[in-house]
Amino acid sequence: MKTGRGAMAVVVQNIERADAELVSRLGAAGVATVHEAQGRSGLMSSRMRPIQQDKAIAGSAVTISAAPGDNWMIHVAIEQLREGDIMVLAPTAPCDMGYFGELLATSAMARGCRALVIDAGVRDTRDLRAMGFHVWSTAVSAQGTVKETLGSVNVPIVCAGAHVMPGDVIVADDDGVCVVPLGRAKEVMDRAQVRLDAEEVKRQRLAAGELGLDIYDMRPRLKEKGLRYV
Amino acid sequence: MKTGRGAMAVVVQNIERADAELVSRLGAAGVATVHEAQGRSGLMSSRMRPIQQDKAIAGSAVTISAAPGDNWMIHVAIEQLREGDIMVLAPTAPCDMGYFGELLATSAMARGCRALVIDAGVRDTRDLRAMGFHVWSTAVSAQGTVKETLGSVNVPIVCAGAHVMPGDVIVADDDGVCVVPLGRAKEVMDRAQVRLDAEEVKRQRLAAGELGLDIYDMRPRLKEKGLRYV
Amino acid sequence: MKTGRGAMAVVVQNIERADAELVSRLGAAGVATVHEAQGRSGLMSSRMRPIQQDKAIAGSAVTISAAPGDNWMIHVAIEQLREGDIMVLAPTAPCDMGYFGELLATSAMARGCRALVIDAGVRDTRDLRAMGFHVWSTAVSAQGTVKETLGSVNVPIVCAGAHVMPGDVIVADDDGVCVVPLGRAKEVMDRAQVRLDAEEVKRQRLAAGELGLDIYDMRPRLKEKGLRYV
Amino acid sequence: MKTGRGAMAVVVQNIERADAELVSRLGAAGVATVHEAQGRSGLMSSRMRPIQQDKAIAGSAVTISAAPGDNWMIHVAIEQLREGDIMVLAPTAPCDMGYFGELLATSAMARGCRALVIDAGVRDTRDLRAMGFHVWSTAVSAQGTVKETLGSVNVPIVCAGAHVMPGDVIVADDDGVCVVPLGRAKEVMDRAQVRLDAEEVKRQRLAAGELGLDIYDMRPRLKEKGLRYV
Amino acid sequence: MKTGRGAMAVVVQNIERADAELVSRLGAAGVATVHEAQGRSGLMSSRMRPIQQDKAIAGSAVTISAAPGDNWMIHVAIEQLREGDIMVLAPTAPCDMGYFGELLATSAMARGCRALVIDAGVRDTRDLRAMGFHVWSTAVSAQGTVKETLGSVNVPIVCAGAHVMPGDVIVADDDGVCVVPLGRAKEVMDRAQVRLDAEEVKRQRLAAGELGLDIYDMRPRLKEKGLRYV
Amino acid sequence: MKTGRGAMAVVVQNIERADAELVSRLGAAGVATVHEAQGRSGLMSSRMRPIQQDKAIAGSAVTISAAPGDNWMIHVAIEQLREGDIMVLAPTAPCDMGYFGELLATSAMARGCRALVIDAGVRDTRDLRAMGFHVWSTAVSAQGTVKETLGSVNVPIVCAGAHVMPGDVIVADDDGVCVVPLGRAKEVMDRAQVRLDAEEVKRQRLAAGELGLDIYDMRPRLKEKGLRYV
Repeated sequence: MKTGRGAMAVVVQNIERADAELVSRLGAAGVATVHEAQGRSGLMSSRMRPIQQDKAIAGSAVTISAAPGDNWMIHVAIEQLREGDIMVLAPTAPCDMGYFGELLATSAMARGCRALVIDAGVRDTRDLRAMGFHVWSTAVSAQGTVKETLGSVNVPIVCAGAHVMPGDVIVADDDGVCVVPLGRAKEVMDRAQVRLDAEEVKRQRLAAGELGLDIYDMRPRLKEKGLRYV
Repeated sequence: MKTGRGAMAVVVQNIERADAELVSRLGAAGVATVHEAQGRSGLMSSRMRPIQQDKAIAGSAVTISAAPGDNWMIHVAIEQLREGDIMVLAPTAPCDMGYFGELLATSAMARGCRALVIDAGVRDTRDLRAMGFHVWSTAVSAQGTVKETLGSVNVPIVCAGAHVMPGDVIVADDDGVCVVPLGRAKEVMDRAQVRLDAEEVKRQRLAAGELGLDIYDMRPRLKEKGLRYV
Repeated sequence: MKTGRGAMAVVVQNIERADAELVSRLGAAGVATVHEAQGRSGLMSSRMRPIQQDKAIAGSAVTISAAPGDNWMIHVAIEQLREGDIMVLAPTAPCDMGYFGELLATSAMARGCRALVIDAGVRDTRDLRAMGFHVWSTAVSAQGTVKETLGSVNVPIVCAGAHVMPGDVIVADDDGVCVVPLGRAKEVMDRAQVRLDAEEVKRQRLAAGELGLDIYDMRPRLKEKGLRYV
Repeated sequence: MKTGRGAMAVVVQNIERADAELVSRLGAAGVATVHEAQGRSGLMSSRMRPIQQDKAIAGSAVTISAAPGDNWMIHVAIEQLREGDIMVLAPTAPCDMGYFGELLATSAMARGCRALVIDAGVRDTRDLRAMGFHVWSTAVSAQGTVKETLGSVNVPIVCAGAHVMPGDVIVADDDGVCVVPLGRAKEVMDRAQVRLDAEEVKRQRLAAGELGLDIYDMRPRLKEKGLRYV
Repeated sequence: MKTGRGAMAVVVQNIERADAELVSRLGAAGVATVHEAQGRSGLMSSRMRPIQQDKAIAGSAVTISAAPGDNWMIHVAIEQLREGDIMVLAPTAPCDMGYFGELLATSAMARGCRALVIDAGVRDTRDLRAMGFHVWSTAVSAQGTVKETLGSVNVPIVCAGAHVMPGDVIVADDDGVCVVPLGRAKEVMDRAQVRLDAEEVKRQRLAAGELGLDIYDMRPRLKEKGLRYV
Repeated sequence: MKTGRGAMAVVVQNIERADAELVSRLGAAGVATVHEAQGRSGLMSSRMRPIQQDKAIAGSAVTISAAPGDNWMIHVAIEQLREGDIMVLAPTAPCDMGYFGELLATSAMARGCRALVIDAGVRDTRDLRAMGFHVWSTAVSAQGTVKETLGSVNVPIVCAGAHVMPGDVIVADDDGVCVVPLGRAKEVMDRAQVRLDAEEVKRQRLAAGELGLDIYDMRPRLKEKGLRYV
């Protein structure tokens, strides 16, 4: 069944998800490493900020396309949630209203969902932190929403500048949010592991006082480009 | 005596305030609930953010209309403060300068004031947190102000998009700041209590795994509007 | 050797720095006091925010002028760092990418540098907090940079609206970042001390309930300007 | 009947308006002069910009409080329009969607309304300019709205930071939008006329090469404050 | 050949384009109508503004994914241009630098391209207007770019919040920019035509003084929802 | 006499200016060319926009450092103006108020000044355009200022991110504003002329259909970097 760009008012019920172990490893690798490992694609805007500090998570995207100021589709999406999912909501026009609070978080957690990524606002942030429900949002606002206009669940969306397909792996930490295409998750994790291993060696050398200029052999190219020391 | 819109350089000395017990209950209800309970009016812009985390408060508004970059009227306002008041300052043009710091907070606390809401900047934020003086502001800045131009105290102002009358109840927490008109405080708290009571029941049902789709009987209307499951 | 405005691709190797004891005292005085003490000049924009809370620091500026999205010059700058230095980076056009993370911080700390001030983004913020490396930035972003275009180290720059010369004293805390010209450091600290001493007296009087209106003798001038009490 | 702050879903049908001749004179005086004449109050944010150039207008405010992304109340408001009115719309949360286009403008013009002031977006801007329908808005966007949620017409609103009561005189030109309280319109125009008359004299003296320093006798006060010429 | 999300440094040479006649009709229909006709999808952010006034255009997208501050791929893209194409450029991180000026426009026009849509800056705007080369951009800046880092041409991109595939129809006018998926162009134009025909009838009725309240039969539903006239 | 960073309340009366013919040629070369010719330094932020269209100008900077919301120093600066000067004003904290209108422009024009560059607001924009007084500003606002706090004239300032010394050559057109250090004006113009001459040749080749890929011999390097054509 076609659910392409512009299709409206559709709920796709059985989406494919990545392997839980793989998702977990991507979460542990973190946003910066994963983003590098997949060729610097899929990063959401730096406007997307966590409401908590020093937390990292990964999960499978259940996507929500919602009208501005209308959170009806979150109720619809919650039914589609499974253990380890992350809801990703993009309004169809810029909106900073509070789509989500502790009652919806209670419901989502009852289905095994632990996080929300939203290009809009959330409320009850103190409660959400206390419950251990993680949120990355572009606003915090007590302003409530209505339930009048249909949207879609599990269709392709653009959230904070990143294209997200249902089932994509969402990696989120203090640095922001990165989207790993479902079909690339294994490859990206393999590359991320190579980076992590290499970084450990570099970290030790740098901590011992070696310079990046020498470790990466930058001096000849800097000279060739014309850098002058005075 | 008339102190309508546009009146300048006036200090209104004896303003009416809401009952302390009522104010306290509104603060405990929190911004999101109070905002809903009064028909979604009175919320300040989401640019208004706390400098501290996980604190909630309510109090009676002592309003300050000040020239941009001029904090003279804060000194004038402090004399008008009583136990339980919250200062609410709106500059007459956008300004991110630091109008307020720990010396003024010391003075305000000596009169029983515990919080400031300001559509501008504050400074000494580390000290303010340590003193337990709460601030919601639209900026943090060390930039000092002058004391040259008169403004007014306890006149109607527009602060971060919300209309505030002296004596209105200010409710503030991590979600932002909401203004409850003095004459509506009792009615709003009554409605807020109804919401709080109802939410507790919903919370338990949602935590038990029931869906909002069912609790709120949304399925028929979603179907009627044309939502398709695929 | 001339390294004036617009000079490019230069590394100035031996810059003058302020006395370590003096730098330390300026850091203890804090941004707001130092900014006042030097006539309200040198403050960076309020867009410049710390990634950690309740930390204050001061150090000697090692300045970096870098192309947007290019962090090559940070590697070059690290070689120039000495104990107590603070790196100050301004891109030549607005940029929110993550120029700096924990590997570079490891390298900088090995040379005695404890902080970065950057009018752009950083990443690995959780690690940086854990390491005790302090950052003031205008963005947090996992987006990596390239190493293709030369810039300069230890030339005059404009960072977040403030003019910074190499060796200037950088004072940073929760209120933001202030730049003290190297040649004025002693004079500024002397004035700051006068302020600190005077503030202690005022603080006690204000805490005891005296009003600023009386301490600063404001009432006659307010009356003369036309303030009306009603 | 009470229609105070927070009242919802009300249409006030017969509002008082200022004298047409007076409104016209305020429009000719212009935003800057009127704003000064009423004590620098009532100015909307500089985010409020015209979609046309070099046009000035004044009219009586028909106010609209609308849900974000919902233009239903504009249809309701149009029925209330009379010759010379200006619609003033404030959404209850920030919104940049296109609430208004050429069809609604056609309808409004049929009732004698010539302008819209909106703290949100409009569309069909080329058509609106061609029709001679004037708009001041905070965005231009083709994004359409829904008709689902009630708002109010002719209640007090806060639009782009200014408090507007139904019937207030709206003055708009290339410099922005200013709100003159209905009850102050005559007094404000009188003061504006004094300013206009005085400005003509100053203009001639300045054009002839006299300095403001001399015309306003600023030199003694500058000297007293400590200005040094070097 | 696979050129999915995250693929880098690829130039797709022979893309499919929509029928020229169809593209022309979409351009004449305009952004607001086309956006409505395709279910309110595909609209770019309202940050995307024209550098000229009262111009409308449509064309086939040649997409460019470029590093921030690097315009090398525009040279590569120009070789791929055909009569009627519109270049659409998205940097991989926010950037306001001037990627494009009159020399590149001269080259693009020599190949039949008449417009650029760019989520970044352009320069030589006076020349571009004089040449009749149309631009929608999110900034104007003289700041030049480098040619160091590869990007891709004719791969899927996210530009100003909209997903764009190579060959998609770009419709742009004073209201902004809308993306019509290539495979939906015929269907969208059919729907747009229905809207245009219907609007003409409504326009005449509204111009004659009929109210939208009556034409759209809104009064019963407003009453049912509880709207009160006072 | 020392007037270094942080000096306050000083008017430097006799500043050096560049040769009028040289200034005129820099203006004709335009912002983009001049900015390139001086090594991409000195460009003001893209927030700095003209209030008129298709005008280009150059002149000698008379700099003004002013308190936020205080335009007193403009009166002081006007006395220092000579034929061909451009006033450049930077407030000491962000401010969008209208510092300048047609009366001040009348006075400035009487002394041969034809333009203002201001990191703040202006008013009377319609009049200013009609008078032929050119303005580049970061805001348009009718909000008036006070005359209470001293600033300085002809001291070094940072305006919209660029460092400006009195006497520097200001070049401004539709692309923005660029600052040429006085001591570099001749050298920069020489380089600009080389660029202008070279561009004419390139323009003709590009107009004839040659590609930048070939003119600049980019193909080998693109291949070496790994660009793939598919």
